[in-house]
Amino acid sequence: MDVRQLSILGVGLLGGSVGLACRSFLNNCKIIGYGHRKESLEEAVLSGAIDRGVADAAEAVEGADLVILCTPVGRFGDLLRQIGPSLKKGAIVTDVGSTKRSVVAEAEKWLPQGVAFVGSHPMAGSEKRGVRFARADLFRDALCIVTPTAKTDAEAIGKVEGFWKMLGMRTTRMSAEEHDRLVGMVSHVPHAVAAALVAIQPQTAAALAGKGFFDTTRIAEGDGGLWRDILLDNADNVREGILRLQGELTELLKRLDGSGALELQTWLDESAHRRQLWAKRKLPEQDVD
Amino acid sequence: MDVRQLSILGVGLLGGSVGLACRSFLNNCKIIGYGHRKESLEEAVLSGAIDRGVADAAEAVEGADLVILCTPVGRFGDLLRQIGPSLKKGAIVTDVGSTKRSVVAEAEKWLPQGVAFVGSHPMAGSEKRGVRFARADLFRDALCIVTPTAKTDAEAIGKVEGFWKMLGMRTTRMSAEEHDRLVGMVSHVPHAVAAALVAIQPQTAAALAGKGFFDTTRIAEGDGGLWRDILLDNADNVREGILRLQGELTELLKRLDGSGALELQTWLDESAHRRQLWAKRKLPEQDVD
Repeated sequence: MDVRQLSILGVGLLGGSVGLACRSFLNNCKIIGYGHRKESLEEAVLSGAIDRGVADAAEAVEGADLVILCTPVGRFGDLLRQIGPSLKKGAIVTDVGSTKRSVVAEAEKWLPQGVAFVGSHPMAGSEKRGVRFARADLFRDALCIVTPTAKTDAEAIGKVEGFWKMLGMRTTRMSAEEHDRLVGMVSHVPHAVAAALVAIQPQTAAALAGKGFFDTTRIAEGDGGLWRDILLDNADNVREGILRLQGELTELLKRLDGSGALELQTWLDESAHRRQLWAKRKLPEQDVD
Repeated sequence: MDVRQLSILGVGLLGGSVGLACRSFLNNCKIIGYGHRKESLEEAVLSGAIDRGVADAAEAVEGADLVILCTPVGRFGDLLRQIGPSLKKGAIVTDVGSTKRSVVAEAEKWLPQGVAFVGSHPMAGSEKRGVRFARADLFRDALCIVTPTAKTDAEAIGKVEGFWKMLGMRTTRMSAEEHDRLVGMVSHVPHAVAAALVAIQPQTAAALAGKGFFDTTRIAEGDGGLWRDILLDNADNVREGILRLQGELTELLKRLDGSGALELQTWLDESAHRRQLWAKRKLPEQDVD
């Protein structure tokens, strides 16, 4: 994909990392950043993540070959509405959002003919916030889920997949609906549960917390506003996942009376075994052990 | 504490690590290991964790100044009954169990006059299993909870605390009841929840799992038999903690309809903030960030 101008809307950890990564792979590409905080834009310019910061989203996308939405997902609808009229014919728009149904629908609503939207979810990140934690290698060896619809331009899909591959990612395709269902289970529900595990601790217990507790709840340090957007946007799937977890825990409670000792061990062993298999299947770089 | 003979009952990850650590700090101390698997005993001797392996617990403690129970907690009662008659006068018995009420009660029941029991819970470990993962520095900078009762010999408490400090640990005292309540919340409930988070995943979702999921569920790889014992032994506290978590998640579900967006963000921000504070308070070596 020949990108002469890349516009990154939202220059936090993810947007900044896209910019830094593109520096290594795109020659003669102008990178424009949009953000509502002047200091973040200045920091992004200083760090080399973007060439120029712009406080107006419509202005930021003028002339762009590729536009990447990197704000919290709750802002995507507004942004797409604002940038629609300023996009040039042939421009491609994608995003890094953790939910996909809503952004796909908003893009179909607001983007003009001749502009292609391809939903993306690069599954990389950190509980850290802001462009100062941006890293050129954030995406390397991680998975990017691309969510085209029946209407999505085939060439644009290939270009967006090529872009993420250029940044070192593996890509896979699925529908936005399937994405939200599966990622709800494996990412959004664990986030909610980690936050709940922190919330229920008495201070006296927290003082005894060890590595186990801190690993289990690491993701709970993620930005509250960002995760509010994600959980609300994927509320139906998150609700279903939490109900399933509550049901699983209710089954566990039944086994705690002692008569279910064997079932309890089998259940624990099965989870240990499943997790082992899944962790082994990951690429070494992503393996946390 | 002058230890001429140390007997380690159970030479897995923890028992093996106690042996390796003692090598660095105790001169002229004979270390006897007990285990029911011959291969584990041989491996423990080869690794230097113990000097000699014995397949009979009563024989293993003969002449010991200090005895440390390092098997799964479900075996402690049997072991204490077996070793009682073989312990010499003045011997001190402690343990590394993750639950404390039951072992304290069993020790009072089975140990003879002239032998002191002091319950310990060194909060160090790993999801890894077996003496091959034992490390001399496993305990360094971690916290050891010591749970004396009103009847516990004061000198023995000091000696056991001194032993763990020698291995590099910080120590704190509390009752076995308080230990089980607090550690139930901050360790046993998170373990059960991590296992449940693995159990509810469809295979298709697991294929998309990233670092967040793997961190959140790391502890679920722990040995099923060992954790069965812990969860059953602390069933009342685990039950209460799980019910509290389910209640917290039910509150979260109410906020997912959109009308609770502000409460949702506040709740997420509060958990993020609490975890940050707790993580900062830890010693650097234990900080997982």
